Amino acid sequence: MKEVAYLLVAVVALIGAVVYMAHASERFDEEADPIFGIKIPPGYRDWKLISVAHEEGNLNDLRALLGNDVAIKAYRERKVPFPNGTMIARLAWSYVPSEENNKVFGRAQSFVPGPATNVQFMVKDSKKYAATGGWGFAQFKDGKPADEPLLQTCFPCHEPVKARDFVVTHYAP
Amino acid sequence: MKEVAYLLVAVVALIGAVVYMAHASERFDEEADPIFGIKIPPGYRDWKLISVAHEEGNLNDLRALLGNDVAIKAYRERKVPFPNGTMIARLAWSYVPSEENNKVFGRAQSFVPGPATNVQFMVKDSKKYAATGGWGFAQFKDGKPADEPLLQTCFPCHEPVKARDFVVTHYAP
Repeated sequence: MKEVAYLLVAVVALIGAVVYMAHASERFDEEADPIFGIKIPPGYRDWKLISVAHEEGNLNDLRALLGNDVAIKAYRERKVPFPNGTMIARLAWSYVPSEENNKVFGRAQSFVPGPATNVQFMVKDSKKYAATGGWGFAQFKDGKPADEPLLQTCFPCHEPVKARDFVVTHYAP
Repeated sequence: MKEVAYLLVAVVALIGAVVYMAHASERFDEEADPIFGIKIPPGYRDWKLISVAHEEGNLNDLRALLGNDVAIKAYRERKVPFPNGTMIARLAWSYVPSEENNKVFGRAQSFVPGPATNVQFMVKDSKKYAATGGWGFAQFKDGKPADEPLLQTCFPCHEPVKARDFVVTHYAP
């Protein structure tokens, strides 16, 4: 009898673990940003390139700006304000020297992406996000959305470029 | 009669100019790299992002690596060697500080793309380019292909990464 009891405990524990993990991964997939309700847009890594940049200082990253088709069309037609449905992604990776590339170039000059730092999104919906210039803002780190205090800082930082519909990045030729 | 003669001369001159310009633009569109015969692949600016980088020194640029669908699939599946039909584009722009972004960040830290420097391509065709590891190389500046001496330097520079099928850039996560 004792063996059966142990087995039963083990089976119940295993079922519990599986249910917990399934639930956790579901929660992870579905987690939305707490202010604007934005989830990570599926397929954003396949969007087209807007531009690239390097930030020094505390950020110390290499970054790429990608846009969905609505964004890219508006950029190329220099259409401001951006139409509803525009989505812009800002990917960023830590800024690391490439020993491998430096060997090829024969001098220390090459910097490449290290691990991803976080990914940010701007989503245009002039009604839903009327209070913040028509834009919703989101930031995710390892799939987890940033908290409210951080997201409150997004729009004030974009306000200086109101003339470009609050979009900082120019299209790279 | 004199007026008619002048008119005739003017018409002939106009036709000549139009024919010359049409021919010149056709020549420009069709100019291929003198060693590998590569032309600028149509639509390459729409390819998906592989990675980004910053080179200091004489290059002093910000760069983006884009790949056609064959390239992206191979990268994501970590497939080496890359299959025939793989095309990789390296875009580069001069590295310039952004006064505009620095104002927003409150400190001098932001570097963005200036004018484009040149664009390079790697094209995989294991038969056609057997002598250079299966890769053809091209570089264009303002639509004009680089000359033979420059293109001769491409493959030697890629040889150290033979284990990765001569492709320097890693896929950014």
